[in-house]
Amino acid sequence: MDFNLLNTLREKNLIAFNISNFVTVQDVANGINALGSSPIMSQDKGEAEEMVKISGSVTINLGAFYDEQLEQTNSVAKFANQYNKPLVLDPVGVGAGSRRKKVCNELLDKYRFAVIRGNAGEIATLADAEWNTKGIDSGQGSGNIVEIAKKLANKRNCVVCASGKVDVITDGNQVVKIFNESNLFKLHVGSGDMLSSTIGCFVGVTDDYFEAAQIATAVFDVAGEIAASKMPEELAGSFGPKLIDELHLITAADVKQYAKYEPQEAIKND
Amino acid sequence: MDFNLLNTLREKNLIAFNISNFVTVQDVANGINALGSSPIMSQDKGEAEEMVKISGSVTINLGAFYDEQLEQTNSVAKFANQYNKPLVLDPVGVGAGSRRKKVCNELLDKYRFAVIRGNAGEIATLADAEWNTKGIDSGQGSGNIVEIAKKLANKRNCVVCASGKVDVITDGNQVVKIFNESNLFKLHVGSGDMLSSTIGCFVGVTDDYFEAAQIATAVFDVAGEIAASKMPEELAGSFGPKLIDELHLITAADVKQYAKYEPQEAIKND
Amino acid sequence: MDFNLLNTLREKNLIAFNISNFVTVQDVANGINALGSSPIMSQDKGEAEEMVKISGSVTINLGAFYDEQLEQTNSVAKFANQYNKPLVLDPVGVGAGSRRKKVCNELLDKYRFAVIRGNAGEIATLADAEWNTKGIDSGQGSGNIVEIAKKLANKRNCVVCASGKVDVITDGNQVVKIFNESNLFKLHVGSGDMLSSTIGCFVGVTDDYFEAAQIATAVFDVAGEIAASKMPEELAGSFGPKLIDELHLITAADVKQYAKYEPQEAIKND
Repeated sequence: MDFNLLNTLREKNLIAFNISNFVTVQDVANGINALGSSPIMSQDKGEAEEMVKISGSVTINLGAFYDEQLEQTNSVAKFANQYNKPLVLDPVGVGAGSRRKKVCNELLDKYRFAVIRGNAGEIATLADAEWNTKGIDSGQGSGNIVEIAKKLANKRNCVVCASGKVDVITDGNQVVKIFNESNLFKLHVGSGDMLSSTIGCFVGVTDDYFEAAQIATAVFDVAGEIAASKMPEELAGSFGPKLIDELHLITAADVKQYAKYEPQEAIKND
Repeated sequence: MDFNLLNTLREKNLIAFNISNFVTVQDVANGINALGSSPIMSQDKGEAEEMVKISGSVTINLGAFYDEQLEQTNSVAKFANQYNKPLVLDPVGVGAGSRRKKVCNELLDKYRFAVIRGNAGEIATLADAEWNTKGIDSGQGSGNIVEIAKKLANKRNCVVCASGKVDVITDGNQVVKIFNESNLFKLHVGSGDMLSSTIGCFVGVTDDYFEAAQIATAVFDVAGEIAASKMPEELAGSFGPKLIDELHLITAADVKQYAKYEPQEAIKND
Repeated sequence: MDFNLLNTLREKNLIAFNISNFVTVQDVANGINALGSSPIMSQDKGEAEEMVKISGSVTINLGAFYDEQLEQTNSVAKFANQYNKPLVLDPVGVGAGSRRKKVCNELLDKYRFAVIRGNAGEIATLADAEWNTKGIDSGQGSGNIVEIAKKLANKRNCVVCASGKVDVITDGNQVVKIFNESNLFKLHVGSGDMLSSTIGCFVGVTDDYFEAAQIATAVFDVAGEIAASKMPEELAGSFGPKLIDELHLITAADVKQYAKYEPQEAIKND
């Protein structure tokens, strides 16, 4: 795992363009900013091209889409492909209904994505795989998530990150599992959205999106573990600000020390 | 008061569909999640029916409505009535102008609501009662709020919760008053919205909406009192995260121990 | 500097109407409320006139505009001028593209503004002055910001506040510099938006907008310094709630004691 990419991210301080879910946008913006990139959450179709051009990447979160946002999303995604800015998709709640699945699949059909990041249920839905899912939150279910994630990665020719107790990251061939985790993530509504946007920050600083998804997940998970370890009990509300604290304070050395993953040969800069 | 409903809520972990005020949506979502339900804040008309069907209830917050949201609200409310999902209305700032009053009354004319939750000024406005109100925040005024709340409950054939220093909850006939309170609630912009959504969570787990409004208010007020009691001074900003902390940590036993209300015969599971 | 205006603001408790950036709206609303005004974030064109009439001022934040919001903004700005409610403009990210600049300049051409508040790069863009800017965040650059701010103030016949390490406030003739600062402001995404809305609160309580911009900036900066001074390290996420804490706790005496500014003869109520 290329821990040094965290330093690269901070040195470059690229603009991370996010099409955001209004429920979690404040935490997402503060997370990006604390980490060391510069968030832009433009909503205006008229500036789509200008904003894409100055950005390092684009993250699309479909948590609370509506017609005008989908129009803007299409415009932004088209320019992102045109200007070679990597696209990250967070298919929030895609298991919760046919409309969400249709919206996601249309985007995936039309544009090249660098990474899809969702929980196991969301990844399974996009892979047309068997999974028991419930509503927006459910990453729990049964099925071989490694095979499901690989299937989606091959189908969409991109990196897939299936988050959960264990995070599975695959380019369709290689697989890395990350074991850092905290129960607090589930108690904070924006955790998944923030992880997707963290991946968005990292795909801007390397062409190796498989590597970017790994280091982003490791940084985010370790930051969350550190935040949780400083709490005397499960503080569902205080976790949000404290997670953002740690995204700013965390160093490449911290991630290297605390990240738990396999296979170990995935280490590059060791 | 049926304290055990808090355990039922957590066991069922239903989806709470919220049409939200963008000002407070993040706190509302985190409050619902910390309490033990699953928030969905869909904004898309095309998925209204699917989202209503998987939800336990629908809470409509009119704090910052706009034309497209009102269209979606009508669609969602229609499906909620059709599928027997209880509706909660928070008529934010309805005393602040004729437009807001018209919007609220049209919804109340067209759809069956389980509960209306507002401050005294908002409830008085909808009851066409005398009250001195100012802007969006003013729950202060003069008038017999018990009679005003009963009038609205009878007019709209639903439960009414008039929040304030004392919370008055009525089904139009019976009245319960809850006395737990903290000045911090007024210092945090989302408190009222969070209370309405808490009621939304509880109406999903019992058909007795009068009971649901009581226990929801007691849980929320006691959680706020506990959060405030842990502060050395009035921390207007820190109260938000800490209130969410307590919504997760609070138990049915805590609510039973600390809730102050009358009449005491309202106790069921004692 | 008229420190007593903080007491006036709290006594009057006026409604501060804000056309908001959805990224930061929750912090902005809580900041206004904690300070002692009443935030309204109406999004509905149909209530524009009613909302303007009950408000003390209107703050327009262009951080994440879209077509419908621009329509509403024009309607609200027109009524604000008609009813003599002072207008504050925050031209977020105006240096980031031609579309943003066009949108801002059209508003400035059509309506009378009391105050424009931006970082140095944003102010330079509106003044058509030389400045090296990058994206949405960049207040860093080279150039004589005092002359640039004066140029814009004279061009638009309003007060200009160019925020940064040193805040420069000018009516086009007189200049006051405020030196209070904390690195934490940059680490919190909503800081600039909150400062603009704080100015919005103060222009509602005095006709002297130059004075209002000074005291607002001093109150906000000192509150931020106090919040930062209580932290053992740079807590990028915790700073948001703690800044809001201090906006409620701060007194006129605190501001008088800690504000660092020149010229000292700017003091009025000493």
